[in-house]
Amino acid sequence: MFSEKMLALGKESSVIREIFEYGRKRKAEIGADRVFDFSLGNPSIPAPPSVEREIRRLLDTREPTLLHGYTSAAGAPEAREAVARAYSAASGLEIPSSLVYMACGAAAALTSVLGALICPGDEVILLSPFFPEYRVFAEKAGAAVVVVPTAAETFLPDVGAIGRALTDRTKAILLNSPNNPTGVIYPEGVLRELAALLEEKKRETGRPVFLISDEPYRKLAYGKTVPFPAALYPDTVVCSSFSKSLSLPGERIGYVIVSPACAASRDLFAAVCGAARSLGYVCAPSLMQYVIASCADGSADLAVYAENRRLLTEGLSRIGYSFAPPDGAFYLFLKAPDGDAAAFCERAKKKELLLVPGNSFGSPDYVRIAYCVKKETILGALPAFEALFAEYETEKRHD
Amino acid sequence: MFSEKMLALGKESSVIREIFEYGRKRKAEIGADRVFDFSLGNPSIPAPPSVEREIRRLLDTREPTLLHGYTSAAGAPEAREAVARAYSAASGLEIPSSLVYMACGAAAALTSVLGALICPGDEVILLSPFFPEYRVFAEKAGAAVVVVPTAAETFLPDVGAIGRALTDRTKAILLNSPNNPTGVIYPEGVLRELAALLEEKKRETGRPVFLISDEPYRKLAYGKTVPFPAALYPDTVVCSSFSKSLSLPGERIGYVIVSPACAASRDLFAAVCGAARSLGYVCAPSLMQYVIASCADGSADLAVYAENRRLLTEGLSRIGYSFAPPDGAFYLFLKAPDGDAAAFCERAKKKELLLVPGNSFGSPDYVRIAYCVKKETILGALPAFEALFAEYETEKRHD
Repeated sequence: MFSEKMLALGKESSVIREIFEYGRKRKAEIGADRVFDFSLGNPSIPAPPSVEREIRRLLDTREPTLLHGYTSAAGAPEAREAVARAYSAASGLEIPSSLVYMACGAAAALTSVLGALICPGDEVILLSPFFPEYRVFAEKAGAAVVVVPTAAETFLPDVGAIGRALTDRTKAILLNSPNNPTGVIYPEGVLRELAALLEEKKRETGRPVFLISDEPYRKLAYGKTVPFPAALYPDTVVCSSFSKSLSLPGERIGYVIVSPACAASRDLFAAVCGAARSLGYVCAPSLMQYVIASCADGSADLAVYAENRRLLTEGLSRIGYSFAPPDGAFYLFLKAPDGDAAAFCERAKKKELLLVPGNSFGSPDYVRIAYCVKKETILGALPAFEALFAEYETEKRHD
Repeated sequence: MFSEKMLALGKESSVIREIFEYGRKRKAEIGADRVFDFSLGNPSIPAPPSVEREIRRLLDTREPTLLHGYTSAAGAPEAREAVARAYSAASGLEIPSSLVYMACGAAAALTSVLGALICPGDEVILLSPFFPEYRVFAEKAGAAVVVVPTAAETFLPDVGAIGRALTDRTKAILLNSPNNPTGVIYPEGVLRELAALLEEKKRETGRPVFLISDEPYRKLAYGKTVPFPAALYPDTVVCSSFSKSLSLPGERIGYVIVSPACAASRDLFAAVCGAARSLGYVCAPSLMQYVIASCADGSADLAVYAENRRLLTEGLSRIGYSFAPPDGAFYLFLKAPDGDAAAFCERAKKKELLLVPGNSFGSPDYVRIAYCVKKETILGALPAFEALFAEYETEKRHD
């Protein structure tokens, strides 16, 4: 009677959401401070004071019909210029504001870019483990999804494997660095190798393979720099948001940047606008666009995540756990001691530790720990992690 | 290299937007008060003070991580409850909040509902003249669009013609009352006739034809009541927004209500959530959701539009123009004296009157006057309308 596919998508209980709901119930039962909930990637630090100040200033000074009125479809000029300026300053690239599209969050950016790029029969390469919505978005846009695993332990793109997966129908590769769920940052060397591979393929086929660089975690890096794919490969489209850098995930404010080095960049930009229009995106929320006009290069107090990461990595290393290089985002990707993440998560639950098994990301031997939590949650959780590890050690000895 | 269809959509210069841009240029040349711009349906009255008050109160009292954090995909419970309450009170229906989905504006509501309903091969009936984005949204969702003209002069649904257009593949009919571009309100009698037709069809085929009722102009009615399709036909899905009632078009805040009388309403609701998810809608903007929680039944000072309408209809009648019954929204649909709307608009332009020819809506003999403007614009424009009418009269005499 209606779309079975959409019904399935709507009913599909997200594993992450289920664990989160269990956590809510459990906290009500035994007290919030006794449940260690690492399930959700929901920023735990407040938006910077500049955001609130700017909202109040806009309410004080701007006519409501302008403040809350339609902006042009691609965005308010001052917001597009602020994003272009901030991204140019950070990357060293020269991004014209005419190639910036203000989007209703990074998810809208991704569906609009995929909608613009995908033609019938096209393939999109996803590097596993990956954020599960990538598959939903790519398939909805009409692409066939080709999954290429990243390298074991490092979780870096396996350029050889990507080369073997390329076909004449490959339209795009979706990159996400700093990565959800692994927390890994892709170094420049790997991106250069990937760029060389794609340049070669373009010479062979005469058509580009686009890099779609999903960068919402760009500002969450702990010591390492986060290279810009757009600086290393021409046919790159950037998708990002202020959900994490400004702690505004609910406000749905983000952007697309079509690299000026992109093949037919102006036409591609127009196609992104056309795709967004067809999906029902009229403009990004106007008040938040004007906030971004003056807060684009601001950030929340990300030092909180750095401290969380330090406590967690030091504690888990000391206990004996292994994990992916914890360089960015607010995720730690932990190896299940016996390689069975689902079982590990079930046992962790008995100790009030709520973790997400990597299965839904495509890594059944790892669990994701979202450390955008209170410091106390980490300190309280470490003894439970230790006890759990000891159980596995004991069992190993008895095997 | 990428989607030609999306490129065309992105490049397509909207006729309305072009006239608006011309107006901007012209105002700079000869002064804003000498250009009479009736091109855009952009609310000219400010949001009610309650909206600003509520934003400030939320900033004062709510933790930023909650205020700006993700809500659940269907919306914050308090927003869904407020919408359910307000719609139930207005319609007499009992709408449970569990069937309310908070959307990023009515456009997102429409693309999500169409995405949920349409299966390959399905047809959607649009009643011309219609808002041009309807075709874009329906085709993007995979539907074949079947256009059924409304009755001449009254612009009411022609139930006989709809009956002849129904096939076994008709999935939905899109209704918009009060109507853009005609300003017409569909009376209960016509909706009852339509409901009877669709009930009969359902008995014949065993599957429902859904009514999608797009109601963003519901509160803009001048004397006449606006019947609720959901009260007259079970298989109805309501799409709406606060863009017009609260003058918040840029904030992208609206909703879907699946009527509880709908076939498989809970599954349909889940499918709407699934479709929205696949289009990249994560949640409606959070701050605005919380504003709606206490302002859902508020409204901007709509009396301004009523006064504009009075001045315009009285003035144009006196001159001798004919127009569609001007019962709602903020549009007057004026008949071009010789039936050539495009030519009429060109001649109007020479008198600094900016109007939109009905061609892009499917009515080449009418022009749309958006009277969400300052009163002075109407008063200043009437002499120009009069001079233009006199020209046509003179030419008629000389023919």
